[in-house]
Amino acid sequence: MSRKWLIENGTFAVLEPGRSVVKGYMLIENDLIKYVGESRPEIEEGTDTFDGRGLLFAPGLINTHGHAAMSLLRGYGDDMLLQNWLQEKMWPMEAKFTSRDVYWGTALSVVEMLKGGTTTFLDMYDHMDQVAKVADESGIRAVLMRGAIGLCPEDVQQQKLEEAIRFAQDWHGKADGRITTMMSPHSPYTCPPAFIEKFVQAAHDLDLPLHTHMSETTAEVQQNIEEYGLRPTMHLEKLGFFSRPSIIAHGVHLNDEEIEILARNNVAVSHNPGSNLKLASGVARVVDLQKAGVVVSLGTDGAASNNNLDMFEEIRLAALIHKGVSGDPTAVPAEEALKMGTIYGAKSVYLPNTGKLAEGMKADFIAMNTDQAHFIPHTDFISHMVYSAGPKDVEHVWVNGNQVVKHGSCLTIDEERVRREAQACFEGLLSR
Amino acid sequence: MSRKWLIENGTFAVLEPGRSVVKGYMLIENDLIKYVGESRPEIEEGTDTFDGRGLLFAPGLINTHGHAAMSLLRGYGDDMLLQNWLQEKMWPMEAKFTSRDVYWGTALSVVEMLKGGTTTFLDMYDHMDQVAKVADESGIRAVLMRGAIGLCPEDVQQQKLEEAIRFAQDWHGKADGRITTMMSPHSPYTCPPAFIEKFVQAAHDLDLPLHTHMSETTAEVQQNIEEYGLRPTMHLEKLGFFSRPSIIAHGVHLNDEEIEILARNNVAVSHNPGSNLKLASGVARVVDLQKAGVVVSLGTDGAASNNNLDMFEEIRLAALIHKGVSGDPTAVPAEEALKMGTIYGAKSVYLPNTGKLAEGMKADFIAMNTDQAHFIPHTDFISHMVYSAGPKDVEHVWVNGNQVVKHGSCLTIDEERVRREAQACFEGLLSR
Repeated sequence: MSRKWLIENGTFAVLEPGRSVVKGYMLIENDLIKYVGESRPEIEEGTDTFDGRGLLFAPGLINTHGHAAMSLLRGYGDDMLLQNWLQEKMWPMEAKFTSRDVYWGTALSVVEMLKGGTTTFLDMYDHMDQVAKVADESGIRAVLMRGAIGLCPEDVQQQKLEEAIRFAQDWHGKADGRITTMMSPHSPYTCPPAFIEKFVQAAHDLDLPLHTHMSETTAEVQQNIEEYGLRPTMHLEKLGFFSRPSIIAHGVHLNDEEIEILARNNVAVSHNPGSNLKLASGVARVVDLQKAGVVVSLGTDGAASNNNLDMFEEIRLAALIHKGVSGDPTAVPAEEALKMGTIYGAKSVYLPNTGKLAEGMKADFIAMNTDQAHFIPHTDFISHMVYSAGPKDVEHVWVNGNQVVKHGSCLTIDEERVRREAQACFEGLLSR
Repeated sequence: MSRKWLIENGTFAVLEPGRSVVKGYMLIENDLIKYVGESRPEIEEGTDTFDGRGLLFAPGLINTHGHAAMSLLRGYGDDMLLQNWLQEKMWPMEAKFTSRDVYWGTALSVVEMLKGGTTTFLDMYDHMDQVAKVADESGIRAVLMRGAIGLCPEDVQQQKLEEAIRFAQDWHGKADGRITTMMSPHSPYTCPPAFIEKFVQAAHDLDLPLHTHMSETTAEVQQNIEEYGLRPTMHLEKLGFFSRPSIIAHGVHLNDEEIEILARNNVAVSHNPGSNLKLASGVARVVDLQKAGVVVSLGTDGAASNNNLDMFEEIRLAALIHKGVSGDPTAVPAEEALKMGTIYGAKSVYLPNTGKLAEGMKADFIAMNTDQAHFIPHTDFISHMVYSAGPKDVEHVWVNGNQVVKHGSCLTIDEERVRREAQACFEGLLSR
């Protein structure tokens, strides 16, 4: 049965050239936006209406790189040298993660993301069936993949590959189409070339995109040159990685030639400014990537290196740091930063029918309360969303046409239980 | 009549060496903290108690540089070259500001600051009686000064100086001591040397500290060298500026000798990372300043160049950008960043009895709700406050022992009226 409803008298961030916002109406039918515009559309009698006054409607935010279950390690280690942090804090704890930990850690992250206006997230981790289960139950849209580290015997590698393939097949298109999958070798520095090639082949066989970490740190670039005689981009190109639709996370340390290769191959880059700053990895060449035509989107990375999953913060950081570092106040303008967190995110994770308020797009959107001091005066709502707003300004969230957050509370998840179980999981990890 | 009350079973961010937080009790008597500690203090029968469970108590945040009334220009001009922004957007509008605009613009900012956990703000602007009036009425603590630009005929200069002196005398120590004043020539590049010297003399006469903008941009440093043959720090030192307790805003472009001069003269620096990034001014040498012993605190600057007054964001930026730019993940650790926003702020604005939860300090503090996804797991509350939290996590705020925000709403200000009047003021400015 078809369900139609009309939002009246709202302000809509359509982000079109020369027309950032529209005051008017948005019609939704089931999982799709059917109309956005200034004039009231014809509707049948009995169509539900929703009062949009005092609300700014925007596309749901799209988080294009993360490891949701790592929220269990939020605040467990900060302000440390990268190798110490990994070896003393992260890896020993992650080695103990069970399916149950991944389920509740992911649930904790999904609560935070949904309440903060994120309607789609990409996740690369282990125990991925649990992540898919949370995505299915919570109503969020998710792009999921088993991230495989290949520093292990060949039989274990094979087992991980098979698990990644099995997961990708099982879940692609599930949960009313909200879940899609990718293939994902962890990174060039944790996966031997032959292992990466197997993932590329599997992605071809399954007709799926590829995702990996690439060029996050200078050390990792140096190691790649020493081991393989190539910088990571050329190395992955040689292994056929970019013959598939693909998205790489980080891309902090790239030379001009690498940027050209990424652009030529339509490789998307997930820029993770918060994590890159916190881990002191550096500042990615976002302006140069965009000039070259590379689609740059935004990711939070895991909460252990961020330490939240607030896409407003990533959007704002993207708008601020490239100005400060380049000395050019026109670098990454507000609207461009917001697009990085929405429509470019959709392109990056190969969901072309999300990320925008327009006819025919999936009804993934948020409503922000503009009757607040930091939204006054009502000068430029795109500026306010990028430079002033925060996750708690999100009043309502819809994914695939279904409301999942109402007046700031999750409708699909028992938030109190998730907090309690996640806390218990962390204490269990500490005591094991 | 003395009023005593006890917070029970709370978590308190005491930020002492080796002891960041304490679980226990805090006793408040009138405007002062009388006790913070693990064991329950002796209290007389009938003493009020307050249930601190699920709350993280922290010192109120201290915003050490801003122009509150500029919130009326929030989002009115962004992502522009500095000179265009000033000449086409800011200055023409600011020239039209009336007392009424300053009153409502300041009230708008104070609503945002109080709700976001800021209990003290420094303000340098015009029509300062209005700013003082808002501070008096709202219950916030304020360090106020008439900021004087000296690019005008001598009689106008004299008039501004006299106004600055009159204001500083009238309001110092007023509003139960919540208002203190300073003397403030706008900057070396907008004030002739003789004009600055008059402010220095007035500061001596009135026994008040001095505040000014300094070395925000490379252009301004270059201009100073061309006009006076000296970099701004040496120039101000020569004019006797640092013979008074003083705080300079920005200090982005400093050489080693300047840092040494600031340290030797105990000059505090208000670091404004958000504004410096947005205006593409650069990244201040905060780590070097701190190593040299300079007290570095945090300011938002005006909302027209930020574009909010969220001190959590400034604290987080301070913790993040210096790691990212230096390549050292141990630069500006979480606790140091939080101190920059609290106790170092207090030192910077010469209010030594604020900025810390300890016996004998003023009862300026906030309570944050820790029963939220982004505070889970309960690993390290200082980390969570710096890397995960936002302004709306502030549940309650007290200044000088009086509650001014309760469950996220202002008790002392009619928020709805402030939003309406501020919007009307902006529209009035546009139409005049």
